[in-house]
Amino acid sequence: MSKSFLPDRLPSLTWSSPCSYFRDHIPLVPMDQENGLDIENDGREIERYLSGISDTSFISREPLLRKRVNTTSQIAIVGANVCPIESLDYEIIENQLFKQDWRANKKIQIFQYIVLKWAFALLIGLGTGLVGFFNNIAVENIAGFKLLFVSDLMSEKRYYLAFAVYAGCNLGLAAAAAALCAYVAPAAAGSGIPEVKAYLNGIDAYSILAPSTLFVKIFGSILGVSAGFVVGKEGPMVHTGACIASLLGQGGSRKYRLTWKWLRYFKNDRDRRDLITCGAAAGVAAAFRAPVGGVLFALEEAASWWRSALLWRTFFTTAIVAIVLRAFIEYCWSGSCGLFGQGGLIMYDVSSAKATYSTPDLLAVILLGVIGGIFGSLYNYLVDKLLRTYAFINEKGAAFKILLVVTISIITSCCAFGLPWLAECIECPSNLKVSCPTVGESGNYKSFQCQSGYYNDLASLFLNTNDDAIRNLFSTDTHKEFRISTLFIFFTAIYCLGIITYGIAIPSGLFIPVILAGATYGRLVGRLFESISKLDTGLFALLGAASLLGGTMRMTVSLCIILLELTNDLLLLPLVMLVLLISKTIADSFNKGIYDQIVKLKGLPYLEARAEPYMRNLVAGDVVSGPLVTFSGIERVGNILHALKTTGHNGFPVIDEPPFLDTPELCGLVLRSHLLVFLNGKNFSKDKVLCDKEIIQKFATFDFGKAGSGKGIKLEDLDISEEEMEMFVDLHPITNASPYTVVETMSLAKAAILFRQLGLRHMCVVPTSQGRPPIVGILTRHDFMSEHILGLYPHMNPHK
Amino acid sequence: MSKSFLPDRLPSLTWSSPCSYFRDHIPLVPMDQENGLDIENDGREIERYLSGISDTSFISREPLLRKRVNTTSQIAIVGANVCPIESLDYEIIENQLFKQDWRANKKIQIFQYIVLKWAFALLIGLGTGLVGFFNNIAVENIAGFKLLFVSDLMSEKRYYLAFAVYAGCNLGLAAAAAALCAYVAPAAAGSGIPEVKAYLNGIDAYSILAPSTLFVKIFGSILGVSAGFVVGKEGPMVHTGACIASLLGQGGSRKYRLTWKWLRYFKNDRDRRDLITCGAAAGVAAAFRAPVGGVLFALEEAASWWRSALLWRTFFTTAIVAIVLRAFIEYCWSGSCGLFGQGGLIMYDVSSAKATYSTPDLLAVILLGVIGGIFGSLYNYLVDKLLRTYAFINEKGAAFKILLVVTISIITSCCAFGLPWLAECIECPSNLKVSCPTVGESGNYKSFQCQSGYYNDLASLFLNTNDDAIRNLFSTDTHKEFRISTLFIFFTAIYCLGIITYGIAIPSGLFIPVILAGATYGRLVGRLFESISKLDTGLFALLGAASLLGGTMRMTVSLCIILLELTNDLLLLPLVMLVLLISKTIADSFNKGIYDQIVKLKGLPYLEARAEPYMRNLVAGDVVSGPLVTFSGIERVGNILHALKTTGHNGFPVIDEPPFLDTPELCGLVLRSHLLVFLNGKNFSKDKVLCDKEIIQKFATFDFGKAGSGKGIKLEDLDISEEEMEMFVDLHPITNASPYTVVETMSLAKAAILFRQLGLRHMCVVPTSQGRPPIVGILTRHDFMSEHILGLYPHMNPHK
Repeated sequence: MSKSFLPDRLPSLTWSSPCSYFRDHIPLVPMDQENGLDIENDGREIERYLSGISDTSFISREPLLRKRVNTTSQIAIVGANVCPIESLDYEIIENQLFKQDWRANKKIQIFQYIVLKWAFALLIGLGTGLVGFFNNIAVENIAGFKLLFVSDLMSEKRYYLAFAVYAGCNLGLAAAAAALCAYVAPAAAGSGIPEVKAYLNGIDAYSILAPSTLFVKIFGSILGVSAGFVVGKEGPMVHTGACIASLLGQGGSRKYRLTWKWLRYFKNDRDRRDLITCGAAAGVAAAFRAPVGGVLFALEEAASWWRSALLWRTFFTTAIVAIVLRAFIEYCWSGSCGLFGQGGLIMYDVSSAKATYSTPDLLAVILLGVIGGIFGSLYNYLVDKLLRTYAFINEKGAAFKILLVVTISIITSCCAFGLPWLAECIECPSNLKVSCPTVGESGNYKSFQCQSGYYNDLASLFLNTNDDAIRNLFSTDTHKEFRISTLFIFFTAIYCLGIITYGIAIPSGLFIPVILAGATYGRLVGRLFESISKLDTGLFALLGAASLLGGTMRMTVSLCIILLELTNDLLLLPLVMLVLLISKTIADSFNKGIYDQIVKLKGLPYLEARAEPYMRNLVAGDVVSGPLVTFSGIERVGNILHALKTTGHNGFPVIDEPPFLDTPELCGLVLRSHLLVFLNGKNFSKDKVLCDKEIIQKFATFDFGKAGSGKGIKLEDLDISEEEMEMFVDLHPITNASPYTVVETMSLAKAAILFRQLGLRHMCVVPTSQGRPPIVGILTRHDFMSEHILGLYPHMNPHK
Repeated sequence: MSKSFLPDRLPSLTWSSPCSYFRDHIPLVPMDQENGLDIENDGREIERYLSGISDTSFISREPLLRKRVNTTSQIAIVGANVCPIESLDYEIIENQLFKQDWRANKKIQIFQYIVLKWAFALLIGLGTGLVGFFNNIAVENIAGFKLLFVSDLMSEKRYYLAFAVYAGCNLGLAAAAAALCAYVAPAAAGSGIPEVKAYLNGIDAYSILAPSTLFVKIFGSILGVSAGFVVGKEGPMVHTGACIASLLGQGGSRKYRLTWKWLRYFKNDRDRRDLITCGAAAGVAAAFRAPVGGVLFALEEAASWWRSALLWRTFFTTAIVAIVLRAFIEYCWSGSCGLFGQGGLIMYDVSSAKATYSTPDLLAVILLGVIGGIFGSLYNYLVDKLLRTYAFINEKGAAFKILLVVTISIITSCCAFGLPWLAECIECPSNLKVSCPTVGESGNYKSFQCQSGYYNDLASLFLNTNDDAIRNLFSTDTHKEFRISTLFIFFTAIYCLGIITYGIAIPSGLFIPVILAGATYGRLVGRLFESISKLDTGLFALLGAASLLGGTMRMTVSLCIILLELTNDLLLLPLVMLVLLISKTIADSFNKGIYDQIVKLKGLPYLEARAEPYMRNLVAGDVVSGPLVTFSGIERVGNILHALKTTGHNGFPVIDEPPFLDTPELCGLVLRSHLLVFLNGKNFSKDKVLCDKEIIQKFATFDFGKAGSGKGIKLEDLDISEEEMEMFVDLHPITNASPYTVVETMSLAKAAILFRQLGLRHMCVVPTSQGRPPIVGILTRHDFMSEHILGLYPHMNPHK
């Protein structure tokens, strides 16, 4: 029973104590620390990137998507492009300068700040609403006239010309969208939701929220959707909303002569995060006319940090969007918006159908959930595989990107025009309120090749805008409108087209393809169950859409609310929930949600809310990678410049040393950006002395605000003479005297939770034992990435 | 310019460094540390309380409500009673024992855990739905028969007898409710929402979620509402939901022979918090039939910590509630539920009224918002004042409580029966779909003293259940039903009655009184604006209710959604939002929301999400109050027992000392509850040696699970012999080796954010300088309370 005092099996770690005796069942010998690239080490790459030299040679050396993407790298693939990434910092910095902060002192400024916050929420709402409306009206008109013209040619039996016109229009629009994307803003390709999600997690990929991205996102999305691709405008709308918010928040740029004093309040990552959260919510609200759904989307899917006050501001923004949209729609009822009818903004009213259900209906609903789960996870798997393939093509250059888009466009056109020939004509049902076949407007019954009094049900789905096709599928009291074979063909085509379309260089949302495919098999199941079920086939389509959405996106409450707001029927709630619950649960057992998958694929170092289980077997000290560069409280200017030049670190610990204190002590952390501003002020002295308080008065808190990308002071901007290099500078005024710290023996899992919950960029690791330097290292986002940790400890079981 | 190296003005703090030179403009001389009571010091009081001796002498010595409530005390007023409070701990504890946790190792147990989580969500939904339905059916029948009987007597012109019967019934029901509350479960008095809110913030007040509280809450609420009080059943439903969740989570009690193995998973504060969040949401869903509103209520108002996974589980629970309620209502349509019609569960359908509005309507809406803000903050002010007065009476004993209830009941009866005599009879409008006056059922047109063909509009409001009165006020297409004078009288009476009723010893919700008063002045404003406004007066009533709710409760999104779900009209959203925004903003400039106010009044140490501004002028080391009791890694049993007996601390730092290490080092934190379990296992040894690994095998993680209140091992249960007292015990296996730490120079504001964000109970403060003990002190919830800090530093400006 008894043991010796210090068992010789005690691990040979420097800080080993009885406390850690039981901790290590794994060999704690770090591997090859030099390989670990620090996300905070990105300074130089960014400088190089921002300085305008398009030296992409370092990119081609690292084929990011060839094999498994290395998310510990400091470059990520955003859109279809490779770009440097930067961590965001949500910590409230407390140093002597910031103590004279406007918030604490001046009531009038707090009032300004609050007014401005709400004014910005209003502006984001107005802007996003306006863009959403413009987007819809443009798509409806471009796609509408194209389809009408084709329809006219078809009724004249000039089939080949009709196909030529149809495919030609699509090709032109697609090529224009691709060119915009490839040449102007590569970051605008794709959905945009993964990037916004990553931004709200604290990862800023360059140019993801830039004005050029906004421009291309809006017009590329209009062109892409009009080109008949199986893509939605919902994801792009979210990205658009976020871009608008970011643009407003970054206001006051000298470039555009917008140096309004008030705008300085938002020059920090925290406030920008809040604005962009509002923007993302506004985007969903504008896309679906779902204000509550937008808020819940931002809360559930987009945001990583949330607080109660933000809930209200977000809701205000989405309500503004709803009001703007409503005002415009009322204006358009007079017919002054061209082909834009009520339909433009999707709103599928199914409230006329009775939502009474019995046991067989529930069985059908459960079946739908299962199908949704399986098809959904398969969808994610295939999209993931295809994205890796497309990456080969896209990285070859802009011309290849456009070529890919053109190819997909031709395939889409062929499918949409070719497949309806497989369908036989159906006689128009009697007692219809709408005309059949529909002529000169979008509608349920397209004649295509059929004679008068007949319609082609497959053409009614294919040769319509996506919104109208969904409306047709959701339509109630039209049990027999689509044949089972039609639905089967349409489902197969849309499912495949949706997969191959995502990832090409156009702004492409995922909601619409998924809703389309889901609604189709939902209606199919409805047809199969029609003998024993009382539910309307339109409701089956809705439930099918819900199931596939649940299976791919894995959102829950927000999807539920979006669907209910779309369909204006609260009574379906229990069924929609059931279907979402089943499909999400099934799909979760196969793979991750599509947005999470894309975030990972793009190499964005996303921090999960939970720590991985294996992190419990490590402590903070285990993953600290060096070399650590520290400054003394009063440091020689030359040393600082040297450190700034030779490392890419964004945070440097400041240590007070003798003769000021008996033993070295951690004073705090100083940021690269603050150092640059401070050095630019040249508050140097010849001796090692504390600086005067007057020096602090020379700076305002706002001088240290975060500049827009590429606008801050750069290292090259500093003009320090040789003489000044030998002088000293007191770093205390700009040192964050209260950095968050953990002791080196802290469990890595708990350190990760701390890091994530507080939204940190740097976390100082302090030693437990005495007689050592007062700081062991700094942990950054990168140090919590599985790839980094498992790279250091390759023998660790990641699932344990 | 130049200064001496170490200015002599440097503050005389032990850890002073150049870093802190600028920090202290305030005299940092702590006052009288001994007065600061530690919430963690409550051990002995709780023991005394739980041991069944109703020794309340220590309560009367501290008249908590006489002057300003001292929230640094370890006792709080819950319901109308004084009871000890305890902090909850959401930290994931990592020690050698817990490393063999079931979560990390055993897949099958994780599956069990997940299944159980969902099963519990289902059970909570079912339970709350059932109780909600039962509550409604009971109230409708008791109050309904009472009112019908009175109505019969009135039609026979036996007015005095009618009053006697009415007042007598009310008195009896009220006395029964008060007796239940006063004798069985004093904690059941009041709304319950503040207590649930406090629990979810980490404060466990004794018996607040006990089975007896649940029982009294259900039946007391039924009796109280039936007694005609101006109280709602909504707040109590939230509390009921939370109680049901807690009861389920605490399952597996030996007392009731429910020792199902699976139930052990939830024996920790984190999982219970999640369950109770679901319960609170289910309560709102059951009260208002608003599943989405319930989720948002839990998110916005109730919960202090939230995560995405919980959103889904909460939503599932509320959907179950909605399904259960719907099933029961369908069952009741057959007429088998007595007087329970569709009306029982409040649902005011206003969707028939057109929600078109123009500029004058908007002006009226803004006016409503302003009125709501002013009346709402006044309401809060008056309730606060009155609660302090009532506390005098309530603390005198159960008989006084009942007397107060009886008095208020008589006042209410007199108002309800007396005031309608002021109203003249109105001729029934023609072309009504309902009978006028209504006979034998609840309805819009009460005859009271009027002859056939006439009705008394004031009686239609007073002599109805509260739900029916609201329905009457919300009714659309009935512009002229209520005269302006009637609305004015009713508003005055209800506003005053609502204020004087809250705080008496019955379960009393605040929603209904506020909705009633708000809807009345909303309708009043509607009548005043009827010449220039197009909005229906029923919609005005809805907006009025929204404005007063916003003015008192200060919730936003959740109120909005609850109202929309109640009234089944999404198109009103923009107006409701506008009104809420205005009223909340105005009211916020006067005082806090009513629930926050009650939490404060009750002395519950609620942690706000934001740190107070003055905390930025302090560091963690400034508020640490002693004396600190630490244990050595291998400690003498007698020392531990002595510390447990003489202090009330719930956490003790463990320090590894020579000869195991060269210098003392912080090993971690050990909890009182874990110590008791561990000592009970008697793993002692004669010498100071590390214990065998086999000893760990003797315990399972679940042995250390948190027991239900009063069920854990107590200090008196330990049977340690004199000989054993001199032996040693190795504390490492139960020491949480990764407690969260801050350095003593950490800004208090940032330490507070860390404490709150991570949901901690203890936070270790470590020194920055070397050569000192490895821990300076422990911060607990109490140390972040304004009262404590401003008690230590009375010269500090709390607003700076």
